[in-house]
Amino acid sequence: MGRQRPGTPTLEEVAALAGVGRGTVSRVINKAAGVRDSTRRAVQQAIDELGYVPNLAARSLAGHRADAVALVMTEPDWRQFGEPFFTEIVRAVGDALTDTPVQLLLTLVRSDTERQRFVEYARGGRVDGVLLMSVHAQDPLPDMLAKAGLPTVMLGRRSGDESVTYVDADNTGGARDAVTHLLAGGRRTIGALGGPLDMYVAQCRLRGYREALERADVEVRDSLIVAGEDFTEESGRRATAELLARHPDLDAVFAASDTLAAGALGALREAGRRVPEDVAVIGFDDFHPARPMEPPLTTVRQPLEEIGRTMVRLLLEEMEDSPVAWRHVILRTELVLRDSA
Amino acid sequence: MGRQRPGTPTLEEVAALAGVGRGTVSRVINKAAGVRDSTRRAVQQAIDELGYVPNLAARSLAGHRADAVALVMTEPDWRQFGEPFFTEIVRAVGDALTDTPVQLLLTLVRSDTERQRFVEYARGGRVDGVLLMSVHAQDPLPDMLAKAGLPTVMLGRRSGDESVTYVDADNTGGARDAVTHLLAGGRRTIGALGGPLDMYVAQCRLRGYREALERADVEVRDSLIVAGEDFTEESGRRATAELLARHPDLDAVFAASDTLAAGALGALREAGRRVPEDVAVIGFDDFHPARPMEPPLTTVRQPLEEIGRTMVRLLLEEMEDSPVAWRHVILRTELVLRDSA
Repeated sequence: MGRQRPGTPTLEEVAALAGVGRGTVSRVINKAAGVRDSTRRAVQQAIDELGYVPNLAARSLAGHRADAVALVMTEPDWRQFGEPFFTEIVRAVGDALTDTPVQLLLTLVRSDTERQRFVEYARGGRVDGVLLMSVHAQDPLPDMLAKAGLPTVMLGRRSGDESVTYVDADNTGGARDAVTHLLAGGRRTIGALGGPLDMYVAQCRLRGYREALERADVEVRDSLIVAGEDFTEESGRRATAELLARHPDLDAVFAASDTLAAGALGALREAGRRVPEDVAVIGFDDFHPARPMEPPLTTVRQPLEEIGRTMVRLLLEEMEDSPVAWRHVILRTELVLRDSA
Repeated sequence: MGRQRPGTPTLEEVAALAGVGRGTVSRVINKAAGVRDSTRRAVQQAIDELGYVPNLAARSLAGHRADAVALVMTEPDWRQFGEPFFTEIVRAVGDALTDTPVQLLLTLVRSDTERQRFVEYARGGRVDGVLLMSVHAQDPLPDMLAKAGLPTVMLGRRSGDESVTYVDADNTGGARDAVTHLLAGGRRTIGALGGPLDMYVAQCRLRGYREALERADVEVRDSLIVAGEDFTEESGRRATAELLARHPDLDAVFAASDTLAAGALGALREAGRRVPEDVAVIGFDDFHPARPMEPPLTTVRQPLEEIGRTMVRLLLEEMEDSPVAWRHVILRTELVLRDSA
């Protein structure tokens, strides 16, 4: 049997709470005959209350291993599966599982009801592990899965202090590289399109911007930073127009996503500024865009394929032998130089 | 208990093959104690050989109902989930399940190994039903699922003679409407871009083209029909160039998909033909395109949302009470008039 995670309820705890022996709990779990209904109910209640699930090794021995993992997206609309970010991650995860006996299942969780439903489904031994994508800061799902004892690997972080295994891109370092490149090109009035700052990823990218300026002894001015409500092109357009109004001498824009950067290019074009001659622009992500940008965008590439592969590797390891600690893997980004900066 | 599907193995057959009583089979299925290992193995072997699964009502009584359905795509690449056709269907299916306790799981099946793996997974009581998308003509998956006793609803048909419940668009009628519209506009030299004719959907759309001509007493000329290797824009471009070479007096093109039609528009532009003045063009599908066409395309709309909703309705019905017959639902298409014809 694998080691228990800290805080994961044990068979012993279930037995103690139900007031029965370990063997009785086992018989209930394995749906064996010879257990009184009242006892069965008491054990089931203790199992539910503690969020107990038999660990994988035991389930596998009992023939209960599902050989399946769920990839869960916490987005409001199924159509999000069509976004380049998700299709690329799903492809990488799917490819990484090709030569394993593990079935990949995609699903969406949008509300408290759906969260509850999914956890019920997953802890019933129908999946052995969970990959989580696009988890928002206040989402309790990772903690619900941990309580249910399900191996879980998250893409990205909700905060800097996660009690869950995750894989993330080096958002801070990537942003720092981008802004350092702008500084090296002689730019000094560098605006930041920060994205929605209730998302940790946006906070990290803005931190990288600040760090690059501080390291170069360039003053960080709050008036050069515009946080957006979201990562859309329209947000990028509005924020850039505002930056131009505040700082007519703006000579560069660091955008916390390529969509924000696309909006910046539009706003600069409307304002008659040449890119990169008057204003250099760098984005973040480098997913396959819906359409090419003009000029081609210099940007920070997230290693989506490596993120997907790493998530699978960590999850399979946790499924084999629940580790005693969470693991955090931060993957390097890459500054891709094109024409806009 | 629901009625058994024709051909679905019964508990009695399992018992007979294993040489045991019905009760013993039940005890093995429910993992009850008091069954000798050799007996358990014999029963399991009979279950595997017959492809037996306890029916849903029985599983539900035994607490084995999964409250989950799988939506399976038989495409070579996970990225296909990003195609408009799939994202729209997935959204419609997801929305139709929102107010049910049923969890939706998406997965991909690309090879014999993956087919086998999925069927093993599904028949283990982990999903209650299966929705199948983009099944190719020779794909044995629908039959494997039927043999495993899993309620299954297919999108589209592999042929005109399916022993499986399916929902399809009226591909023949839609094509007939399109070509009838071209004839009503005075067009007489109407080319057909037929798509890959090993796909039943392509056969139907070409049949509609022929039927419209026959009804109008216009000769069907084989030289006006070009089957493509696939539904890509490049295929449409090549086929249209060939049609123009064969018939310089070409005055209309019916394309069996919007992507083929996009290729036709490109080829006609290159050849200096005006659309619709010189050559009218009608496509098929009306999914959200990656980019708008010039001129806006007259096309036959597939009712994707209704297709998704109907698939869910039929599947939930089959999960409640396995019907004795397969059901086939053909949904009307709609000719959407824009500028190209």
